Amino acid sequence: MGRVVVDVMPKPEILDPQGKAVAGALPRLGFDQFVSVRQGKRFELEVEGDVTPEVLDAAQRAAETVLSNPVIEDVVRVADIEADAAATVESEGLA
Amino acid sequence: MGRVVVDVMPKPEILDPQGKAVAGALPRLGFDQFVSVRQGKRFELEVEGDVTPEVLDAAQRAAETVLSNPVIEDVVRVADIEADAAATVESEGLA
Repeated sequence: MGRVVVDVMPKPEILDPQGKAVAGALPRLGFDQFVSVRQGKRFELEVEGDVTPEVLDAAQRAAETVLSNPVIEDVVRVADIEADAAATVESEGLA
Repeated sequence: MGRVVVDVMPKPEILDPQGKAVAGALPRLGFDQFVSVRQGKRFELEVEGDVTPEVLDAAQRAAETVLSNPVIEDVVRVADIEADAAATVESEGLA
């Protein structure tokens, strides 16, 4: 079982009310480090076998046609989830 | 200006109706490679200066208390967005 991660974010010129709401809430809760927040979506697509280049190519097409609205959103990443592992371990080390 | 990415996913045992809806739509649109889909959230937090270990630590705490609901969601990644760059370029090469 392989997994592909697809990250979709609102385009920079698009207003992002969810992100604005989070950005407003953070300082009230003691987090004053963050000057702005954008909120997007993360999809994890599971495939039967390995994540081949063909699977990544299909995921890229699905990301652009089904998982995002190209008028208001950008697909910022399509990747084999294994490529994520290092960063995940790194962040878990902070907990 | 540095940016921290926080990824939040529904816990594996939690039903994910959005992901199920996407998983149902994909085969109808010709994508039959994907056996299941989970949908979560991606946040990009912007800071004034560099992404220091202190900033990552604050982001981890914000992720666990503000950006996710620990009853139903897991924080799967907190990372300096620069660590993402390689994977992003890789996926852009597929487009």
